[in-house]
Amino acid sequence: MRGAVLNAPGDVRVVDRGQPKLVEPTDAVVRLSAACVCGSDLWPYRGIETVDGPAPMGHEYVGVVEEVGEQVTTIRPGQFVVGSFFASDNTCENCRAGYQTSCVNRVPMGALGTQAEYLRVPLADGTLVATPGQPADDLVPSLLAASDVLGTGWFGAVAAQAAPGKTVAVVGDGAVGLLGVLAARQLGAERIIAMSRHESRQNLAREFGATDVVAERGDEGVARIKELTDGLGAHSVIEAVGTQESMMQAIRATRPGGHVGYVGVSHDVALPGAELFFSHVHLHGGPAPVRQYLPELIDLIWNRKINPGRVFDLELPLEKAAEAYQAMDERRAIKVLLRP
Amino acid sequence: MRGAVLNAPGDVRVVDRGQPKLVEPTDAVVRLSAACVCGSDLWPYRGIETVDGPAPMGHEYVGVVEEVGEQVTTIRPGQFVVGSFFASDNTCENCRAGYQTSCVNRVPMGALGTQAEYLRVPLADGTLVATPGQPADDLVPSLLAASDVLGTGWFGAVAAQAAPGKTVAVVGDGAVGLLGVLAARQLGAERIIAMSRHESRQNLAREFGATDVVAERGDEGVARIKELTDGLGAHSVIEAVGTQESMMQAIRATRPGGHVGYVGVSHDVALPGAELFFSHVHLHGGPAPVRQYLPELIDLIWNRKINPGRVFDLELPLEKAAEAYQAMDERRAIKVLLRP
Repeated sequence: MRGAVLNAPGDVRVVDRGQPKLVEPTDAVVRLSAACVCGSDLWPYRGIETVDGPAPMGHEYVGVVEEVGEQVTTIRPGQFVVGSFFASDNTCENCRAGYQTSCVNRVPMGALGTQAEYLRVPLADGTLVATPGQPADDLVPSLLAASDVLGTGWFGAVAAQAAPGKTVAVVGDGAVGLLGVLAARQLGAERIIAMSRHESRQNLAREFGATDVVAERGDEGVARIKELTDGLGAHSVIEAVGTQESMMQAIRATRPGGHVGYVGVSHDVALPGAELFFSHVHLHGGPAPVRQYLPELIDLIWNRKINPGRVFDLELPLEKAAEAYQAMDERRAIKVLLRP
Repeated sequence: MRGAVLNAPGDVRVVDRGQPKLVEPTDAVVRLSAACVCGSDLWPYRGIETVDGPAPMGHEYVGVVEEVGEQVTTIRPGQFVVGSFFASDNTCENCRAGYQTSCVNRVPMGALGTQAEYLRVPLADGTLVATPGQPADDLVPSLLAASDVLGTGWFGAVAAQAAPGKTVAVVGDGAVGLLGVLAARQLGAERIIAMSRHESRQNLAREFGATDVVAERGDEGVARIKELTDGLGAHSVIEAVGTQESMMQAIRATRPGGHVGYVGVSHDVALPGAELFFSHVHLHGGPAPVRQYLPELIDLIWNRKINPGRVFDLELPLEKAAEAYQAMDERRAIKVLLRP
């Protein structure tokens, strides 16, 4: 089958890769309907994370189950399924606590590479959630968004305790940040401040529920958030970038006792203890336990209550994966959908 | 009046200082019944924090109100009062949110120096809490503990979400850590693991409610906590030291989705972003909003439900403040009570 690999920084190719097969009796094999490129795929693409190429790429996926192992009991061939970027058993104590991305048996899907025609999914019963039926074509992008960026933005909003009466600020205007806006809106936040300098992203943020847009960043951005919040800072801040600057912007924009939900994959970040101590903020985040939210998110999408697929502003055939990476790297596209 | 000052690292003296007077109409002047030396006083004493001596010392206090300013309405001369280490108006939005140590009008009591005979307390109505009457002598140490170390341990336990069914670990066996054990017990924790290598402190931890004691520290201490918790880590960890080692020990001893409550004043700490991200812990802490808890803590002490004054294992006259600092610096005493 065909699948994308990263050979070296900047060098993505679609090549013939081995056909995925059942390995464990708890596996499923899925024929992918759509995949996509994630902001976190850009870290190795840009050479900021080391690559030992050729490495299979991609960790977001939706598709139709082809085959299941003999111990799989709830997932059946023919079902349309959505999974998250970590396979999880959904039965261990960490899973039951709602942290499926810290499952004691977790398997990173990025190592299997979902930018491809087919995919082996470990721990299929714990990992995959089937939709109520075969989805209409226009629902596929939204279901694909649920696989990571929607679930990640949602976790960011939950970790930041977005809720009625709260002012929520969002640092980062990539797909995750924008869907953090959507999540904060769904969770009932009173005021949602999107931090973005890009008009198209500002517009999408407003469509998703942002009530205010702040174009400034860093110290100026923090000052602007404080101006909008009686000098105190936001109750909740979603951090969706993962750099030192974005983390400090998030912490400083949060009022004492407020909550920072950070979901940008952390790169070269060192948080100054004394500043954090005196900030009085709550800090929570990490790899989003998307599996926890999938049933609820699929339901919202299926019933057309939310349209997170709007973050895909470019669609390409899988064979053009290299072009997809380029478009996202140059910020010409928010997020690119790939059709195998 | 007489009061302690720090001239330079290691050089504490009791000298004649100006008699405190009402300055603002919201002030009170209190004749101190007892004061004490805090673990955080040791940072400047050891030269780790810079001192611009002679600096008045101490920020914990109980005593009898001598005089109040004309705008003070709830506090009256003759009352026995307990206050926290930050004066706070208790009416601003941060105070109402329960973060009185981030009061927009806060005044650090350490700058006024409570290791003395008399003390000016700003924002008296917001800061001071009167006891139901004049306390019995044996209650005074416990009421003094409420002024900081008990309230701080309590906040650590609340921030770590100690609760029924939870396993709580405590990093640090100073007065705050020991009272974190007491707080976790009061909050109903099922299992409380005190981390301590000192027998007298281990014994006091057990008296306060510790069910287990772990003598190992660092990576070995973390491994021991994991052994005791099915390999997952504690649900809740109270950090009561403030160093890089203690913070990492706390974070690593916490299970995914668990809570670290950190109350040791942070010194030269830099938290690695990626490790924190993948740890999935909640992090909350800072200067404890002791004022929030004072009414409840005073009630528990008054009714002899708790005896936090047990942390004072040495009592000296104020004139011997230098000896008090020495005893704590050399860890010969857990905490020293000073009688003016």
